[in-house]
Amino acid sequence: MSTQDFDSIFPRGEKNPYGQNFIGQSYLTMLTTEGVPVGNVTFEPGCRNNWHIHHATAGGGQILLCTAGSGWYQAEGEDPVSLEPGSVASIPANVKHWHGAKADSWFAHLAIEVPGDNTSNEWLEPVTDEEYAHLK
Amino acid sequence: MSTQDFDSIFPRGEKNPYGQNFIGQSYLTMLTTEGVPVGNVTFEPGCRNNWHIHHATAGGGQILLCTAGSGWYQAEGEDPVSLEPGSVASIPANVKHWHGAKADSWFAHLAIEVPGDNTSNEWLEPVTDEEYAHLK
Repeated sequence: MSTQDFDSIFPRGEKNPYGQNFIGQSYLTMLTTEGVPVGNVTFEPGCRNNWHIHHATAGGGQILLCTAGSGWYQAEGEDPVSLEPGSVASIPANVKHWHGAKADSWFAHLAIEVPGDNTSNEWLEPVTDEEYAHLK
Repeated sequence: MSTQDFDSIFPRGEKNPYGQNFIGQSYLTMLTTEGVPVGNVTFEPGCRNNWHIHHATAGGGQILLCTAGSGWYQAEGEDPVSLEPGSVASIPANVKHWHGAKADSWFAHLAIEVPGDNTSNEWLEPVTDEEYAHLK
């Protein structure tokens, strides 16, 4: 499937400026930065972000709303969750996790940044090909 | 068009419990209430909410993300804005406004409640048939 064939509601935007924390190609468009920041993230098949943590001392975390394609969300120590159009994942602050496309599918989700106190993002190690290949 | 023919990503849910503040039939599903509340609102053709204000002393307001169909957003004293799939409307706190479907189209939007201080919603008069008929 070429990038032109992936039909998504929200604009794909430019290559993700945080791409050094991803395996594979992703794209990011900020839909709004007023009030609550909302981004649209698009992943090519096999693309996923590294394990990471949204730190906060109160509030914080992120809400994912899948709008197209098919992907994974996994919190450390938990089973991976399949995300399809209409799926919602609430990622608590301070939980190590990753998300990304399935091996054979493009994937797009909205990402809503939940406001919090003393927020920061910590990027960690990649999701290895071995870990990723075991997902089903 | 019957309700069955309207294809939307997020579930339509039940008849809107705030329906007394709408003209026509709408539906509401809360997608998450953790962190930032996010609802999916679906309007039948011609359905619109009454003029209303999201009050806050700091922060607050609402972000609309159109996912399907076609509708209107209008702030008092401003031209109506057409919302199509992919459109974003950032509604500031303390601004009188309304939103809803076009006369001949279903309409669905996500509604993200922006956190704020001392927030409350004030429901006002309906958008009259005369006002609504002039939209184009």
